[in-house]
Amino acid sequence: MDAAQIRQKMAETNRRFEREVVAASNVDALDSIYTAGARILPPGAEMIAGRENIKGFWKSLLADAHLKKAALVTVEADIRDDIVTEIGRCDLAIQPAGGPETAMTIKYIVVWKEEGGAWKWHWDIWNAVS
Amino acid sequence: MDAAQIRQKMAETNRRFEREVVAASNVDALDSIYTAGARILPPGAEMIAGRENIKGFWKSLLADAHLKKAALVTVEADIRDDIVTEIGRCDLAIQPAGGPETAMTIKYIVVWKEEGGAWKWHWDIWNAVS
Repeated sequence: MDAAQIRQKMAETNRRFEREVVAASNVDALDSIYTAGARILPPGAEMIAGRENIKGFWKSLLADAHLKKAALVTVEADIRDDIVTEIGRCDLAIQPAGGPETAMTIKYIVVWKEEGGAWKWHWDIWNAVS
Repeated sequence: MDAAQIRQKMAETNRRFEREVVAASNVDALDSIYTAGARILPPGAEMIAGRENIKGFWKSLLADAHLKKAALVTVEADIRDDIVTEIGRCDLAIQPAGGPETAMTIKYIVVWKEEGGAWKWHWDIWNAVS
């Protein structure tokens, strides 16, 4: 895969996260987002290792935090044959039932690896911009 | 440089950060820690680009937040010829003049690059563990 193809694969994964995980509120779709051995480093919590544990984290966030929308933008990407490092931003919308929608922006670094022909998030850390 | 040599260079940089930047409260020592084009993504703030701007950030943190000690531990490192990705933890000690010392632990991802024979932090993002 050349850099343009990898960039295309990354965009597919990010759009899938927005639509199939967050908008559809379906953590099973994380199988095509995170590698099996992925790690996430969420703010205010210890590192979580392994896709099944990561699904548990996102299940809580989608339900308890009422996360409704996510829009990911790649700010910088260093693309290599077998590893990609990315700096990005994500606009989030949170809306409890009957309540108003509130917006929040985070920034992140994701380390990507290829798994089964897809490019997936292998390490994922983020924090708030304000 | 083989992986063992790179790991040794990384340790040198991390020890230098602990001793020459934080313990000695000297941001000029960041010249040997961050690449010239480094980016940091601190919690609660926008991304900061470029070593000179990064020095300004650390100057405030050392002075205003009374950061006195830092102890870095590499949790995982993926070492390649020209790029290293690292997950780590850092124990911090904060102590305003005359006040008690308080402890805080953060976790981070650093993307390392070689610059002038040293291995330096090129992208640096962190958040709290609790």
